[in-house]
Amino acid sequence: MPVITLSTDFGRDDPYVGIMKGVILGINPRATLVDITHGFSPDRLQEAAWKLSTIIDYFPKGTIHLAVVDPGVGGARRPITVKTKTHCWVGPDNGLFSQILRAEPRAQVFHLTNDRYFLKPVSATFHGRDIFAPVAAHLSRGLSLPALGKRISDPVLLDLPEPLFEKKALRGQVLYADRFGNLITNLSRELLEQYFPGKKITVRIGRRVIQGIQENYAQAEPGRLLALFGSSGFLEIACNLGSAAELLGYNPRKFSAVRLDNH
Amino acid sequence: MPVITLSTDFGRDDPYVGIMKGVILGINPRATLVDITHGFSPDRLQEAAWKLSTIIDYFPKGTIHLAVVDPGVGGARRPITVKTKTHCWVGPDNGLFSQILRAEPRAQVFHLTNDRYFLKPVSATFHGRDIFAPVAAHLSRGLSLPALGKRISDPVLLDLPEPLFEKKALRGQVLYADRFGNLITNLSRELLEQYFPGKKITVRIGRRVIQGIQENYAQAEPGRLLALFGSSGFLEIACNLGSAAELLGYNPRKFSAVRLDNH
Amino acid sequence: MPVITLSTDFGRDDPYVGIMKGVILGINPRATLVDITHGFSPDRLQEAAWKLSTIIDYFPKGTIHLAVVDPGVGGARRPITVKTKTHCWVGPDNGLFSQILRAEPRAQVFHLTNDRYFLKPVSATFHGRDIFAPVAAHLSRGLSLPALGKRISDPVLLDLPEPLFEKKALRGQVLYADRFGNLITNLSRELLEQYFPGKKITVRIGRRVIQGIQENYAQAEPGRLLALFGSSGFLEIACNLGSAAELLGYNPRKFSAVRLDNH
Repeated sequence: MPVITLSTDFGRDDPYVGIMKGVILGINPRATLVDITHGFSPDRLQEAAWKLSTIIDYFPKGTIHLAVVDPGVGGARRPITVKTKTHCWVGPDNGLFSQILRAEPRAQVFHLTNDRYFLKPVSATFHGRDIFAPVAAHLSRGLSLPALGKRISDPVLLDLPEPLFEKKALRGQVLYADRFGNLITNLSRELLEQYFPGKKITVRIGRRVIQGIQENYAQAEPGRLLALFGSSGFLEIACNLGSAAELLGYNPRKFSAVRLDNH
Repeated sequence: MPVITLSTDFGRDDPYVGIMKGVILGINPRATLVDITHGFSPDRLQEAAWKLSTIIDYFPKGTIHLAVVDPGVGGARRPITVKTKTHCWVGPDNGLFSQILRAEPRAQVFHLTNDRYFLKPVSATFHGRDIFAPVAAHLSRGLSLPALGKRISDPVLLDLPEPLFEKKALRGQVLYADRFGNLITNLSRELLEQYFPGKKITVRIGRRVIQGIQENYAQAEPGRLLALFGSSGFLEIACNLGSAAELLGYNPRKFSAVRLDNH
Repeated sequence: MPVITLSTDFGRDDPYVGIMKGVILGINPRATLVDITHGFSPDRLQEAAWKLSTIIDYFPKGTIHLAVVDPGVGGARRPITVKTKTHCWVGPDNGLFSQILRAEPRAQVFHLTNDRYFLKPVSATFHGRDIFAPVAAHLSRGLSLPALGKRISDPVLLDLPEPLFEKKALRGQVLYADRFGNLITNLSRELLEQYFPGKKITVRIGRRVIQGIQENYAQAEPGRLLALFGSSGFLEIACNLGSAAELLGYNPRKFSAVRLDNH
């Protein structure tokens, strides 16, 4: 019973996600379908690319991940599948898989061109239904990737913000806020251990200064900001029993810098 | 592994949808459950009726569709099941299945009266749990329809807006806006090809004029309105990388006319 | 095919729920997963405790219920599993299972300490992924509870509001509003039949007076308040074709008393 995950920007009120599932189950009735999110935003592709990469370690080998954030549907962008050591990803070649590809540089990418595995006629506005869902379903039945199209070596990679070390400080960025208002940054535990081994760290965001890195939320007073490593190993700015995003007026459409040093 | 879909106005924050699924799995543990939407609005039955009809072609033969938008629950409206050539629909007889019945005039409709297949006691406020879910589950195990009650010939049909041709122009209506702000109309590709074969078409909505019909979103400038045939074959008013609903101040509770001609 | 339900305060836009499902399916690929809600609020634990108890009767024997509303994650609160006659519940020992435990005083509670069944390393912020999901998955494969840790006799119980009879009137409380704006109280049908057998009842909420108890919504005029027994057997204040919560300015963070007498 192969697992197929679905991540889109379709929301859950329109029938689009259900339609994709109908297409998949028509091809592989034994597939187990798991929704990751349908709340991606078409104008925040970076955030989607990061969030997708957080699920990698938690799905069984052989999982197929369907991901559709596709404002360029019907235009020139290529439909692709990305084969990593343990999983397959299916979706548009617009940078959505940037983090997957960076995490595993030896992943193979195929351009989906064999319309034998598409729903026909292929519409110009819903490749999730007509290309990506049926291809994911066929992959879950064991179809080999070369049958789908040619291997390519130039998938689109987004310019994702990289941490920067300057003047004895580490500069990172908030990637997104989660539902609890935790601000997730691009600063990993490994990176901090490398730059500030065993040292007391000060975190600055906006005009706020946070002293030290805590283990869990309850180590700060209720309503107070704290910094800690979140569940995917990246530094988070949080607020015990509250929302750091609200407290700091976080705007997902603006760049939010985080600065770490050991003064 | 039969598929049962669920479409309701219950939202996803209350346990109502989960409870219906528990009831189904208690009767048929092998059912595969697929959510279509739980965001229908009880005061927009027309929109629900249209949206339901968009999923027909994409589910495997034998799928059971459970649909509950039921403000008259516990009153005089009948619980019914609709059998089309390939699917079964279960829900209240209040017009929710109008488009299904129009699309397939030879569908058979049964009044659900045999309480042997209901959960008991039947509440007056949650027939989704007590009647529709258990009936859907029994159908998915192969129960024959006549066992559920008598066949009827007068199911409720909503007055759905029909396109109108007058003075060389075609008048249609916006049926609903989707999550992306696309405005979906009741004007099908077939209809347009019949009335304006091979001709350049002008689309008017409110005070806006849109020239021609495009193939995909990217054919308009970012932020500009366009008209195209959406994924279910109906004309849509969209906005490339934006929301047509927002741009036009669309109000789902008001009638929005669309006028097409070839001047 | 064992059923595992999921109830959290994670929302559906972050990948957290999907990640828990991935962990479960990695351990038990045959589990059937059912979402109850991911809209619980971390600061309304009472409401979550009540809502959880409404699903008990509707899931098959042997169902495992995973419930995570866990603002104290990583701190001193214990991870537990609660074994009732027919089901198992897995989650934090913070009162979330208060109603389950009150409904079945002979339920057995175990402190989850055997990290053999945890994901490692166990994070300090996401026990849903690292402890509760894998334990639920192992339970669904038949693991016996004593293998997970020691039995305990002092699980946390919330002070849930109890109905009060004073001066020939019954005083209850609104527990929560559902998506339709129905206000669900803690006054059961049994209680009313006991205190006001066969008598006409007057319901008072705020400054409003509602005469009698109806069978279904349509028995009130459109837009008018009514009282009726909801689908889980508790008195509800509703509004036919409208929202009682809106009409009464209901605030989920304030105590809302309901007073019943037979004048």
